[in-house]
Amino acid sequence: MKLQPTGLRELAVTLLERRNAPTESARLQADLLIEAELRGLPSHGLQRLPLILSRLDKGLADARARGSGIWRRQAFLSMDGERGLGPVVVLNAMRIMRSILGETGIAVAAIRNANHIGMLAYYAEAAARDGLIGIVMSTSEALVHPFGGTEAMLGTNPLAIGIPSGDRPFVLDLATSVVSMGKINNHALRDMPIPEGWAVDGEGRPTTDPHAAKAGAIAPFGGAKGYGLGLAIELLVAALAGSDFAPDVHGTLDDTHPANKGDLLVLIDPAGASGTLGPLAAYLDRLRLSRPVNPASPVTVPGDGARARRAATAEAGIDLPQPLYEHLMALEAA
Amino acid sequence: MKLQPTGLRELAVTLLERRNAPTESARLQADLLIEAELRGLPSHGLQRLPLILSRLDKGLADARARGSGIWRRQAFLSMDGERGLGPVVVLNAMRIMRSILGETGIAVAAIRNANHIGMLAYYAEAAARDGLIGIVMSTSEALVHPFGGTEAMLGTNPLAIGIPSGDRPFVLDLATSVVSMGKINNHALRDMPIPEGWAVDGEGRPTTDPHAAKAGAIAPFGGAKGYGLGLAIELLVAALAGSDFAPDVHGTLDDTHPANKGDLLVLIDPAGASGTLGPLAAYLDRLRLSRPVNPASPVTVPGDGARARRAATAEAGIDLPQPLYEHLMALEAA
Repeated sequence: MKLQPTGLRELAVTLLERRNAPTESARLQADLLIEAELRGLPSHGLQRLPLILSRLDKGLADARARGSGIWRRQAFLSMDGERGLGPVVVLNAMRIMRSILGETGIAVAAIRNANHIGMLAYYAEAAARDGLIGIVMSTSEALVHPFGGTEAMLGTNPLAIGIPSGDRPFVLDLATSVVSMGKINNHALRDMPIPEGWAVDGEGRPTTDPHAAKAGAIAPFGGAKGYGLGLAIELLVAALAGSDFAPDVHGTLDDTHPANKGDLLVLIDPAGASGTLGPLAAYLDRLRLSRPVNPASPVTVPGDGARARRAATAEAGIDLPQPLYEHLMALEAA
Repeated sequence: MKLQPTGLRELAVTLLERRNAPTESARLQADLLIEAELRGLPSHGLQRLPLILSRLDKGLADARARGSGIWRRQAFLSMDGERGLGPVVVLNAMRIMRSILGETGIAVAAIRNANHIGMLAYYAEAAARDGLIGIVMSTSEALVHPFGGTEAMLGTNPLAIGIPSGDRPFVLDLATSVVSMGKINNHALRDMPIPEGWAVDGEGRPTTDPHAAKAGAIAPFGGAKGYGLGLAIELLVAALAGSDFAPDVHGTLDDTHPANKGDLLVLIDPAGASGTLGPLAAYLDRLRLSRPVNPASPVTVPGDGARARRAATAEAGIDLPQPLYEHLMALEAA
């Protein structure tokens, strides 16, 4: 069923406010989920809301917490998320970082003890729209096997990079796995085989059975290189945030454990650069106009696809699965 | 023919000193080339030396320059390479950055007008051995096509990340292309077909002919994700260093143009972190001991392979192609 974003956002805000979220925090968490729906990323959309609410009910998340930061060094912020909602803590860290960015030109925030921060593009784009370069990474439960390995040892460790470029900022947001566990779950729900190369089963054998894959591990994207990048994110986050490594991480997919993964933000103020951002937009347009493989599918730049999907969905409404809608309605009536 | 690294290093030093390189700079440039040979990366080894010498002879590179830095912001160093040798300028930038790192915890240097900086792992590992996290990226001539495109619009845009971890630091060094142009040149020399998916020809058609590929473009690694990462590096470097975009870049493969690509360094002092590096080495060992695809090939961590190859080559000697050896001998006799 197609629903208007406004009504769904208000529903999410109401459910969060009932669990002691200050209005501003409730709006922020709700907005993140709606933005994911609008951009065609339902795995990071409203289907996450029941788990968030359950974690609030059980005290594993604290809707009032905003996280508290300590400047370990002048441009190095160490942030205790205090079990706060992920987006609330991240946006608070970004606010604190901006206070010194004019002076230092670059700053890093290492966050532990915050709940799931959701779609990373949200923060990278917020930075870019503020005229800043934003780099965001996050760790998670062990779902991905090393290149040449067969055991789930790494998180899906996403990376987002936002770079200002007029009204069409560059916004990259990628998981370092070849596919998300959400997509494998989706195949499992519909009993559809998954493509070869996506996953191994619990015994480490390649599989096209999505049910077997759920007990196994997902491949890193891009072979040894994607594995290296995912592992770099695992190490950077844990080393700087003091968070746990994937095999010991809990709390982003369950409502039984505190969230002990970590998140890392780097902000750079390009106003301090000798370069200017002007030629950047022109180069991106050259890319978009370069010869495509398929004349009907022009070359795109990270951010373009999400913007197009967002515009279409904002017009047509969010297509929410009936069971999820009913679940949310039941939560509202409770 | 197998040659001892010491003799080859001295040969390179002599050739560079004859072109006015101060001893320290000559040793640094020579060491970088020898280290690439030792790690099994001949494309970044001594075969680069004749071009470096020719660029020095023609005034496109200045062996005396070390680059001059301006602190645009407290932790943002803008570096004019002054046509210096790449490694000399990068190591000078790292030295300057370290002077404020204890205070700020993180610093960035954006470098333009430096010559080719060679194997990025060299710098990332140097940082890690100093107890620092080092992130290095670089741009280059247009060799790579966008995902969904067929024209060479991006550099091979390598990324290196070094993270301290006892005597076996994590050292990732990857080009964002599926393969290096050096490897395609190598296939062309031997008239061997290249695998499908590596490259397109000058008309944008997929090709397995290495000669046709040289006139075309290389694919990004890992599909849309690798393209996004390579493009992010292209934009970050150009935006912060004020260097040119790939289609306009010259000077790392020719001896006719100044080098107008850019390089970016980020250093982070993890001593400011709430995390500690201790658990990191233990986690990496868990990875190495995790179940491999092939029992005869244990899981490795970025840096392991290079260390193993380095040890073997240091023992057995560097296997230099006869024509390259004769070329270097002729240069010495000149």
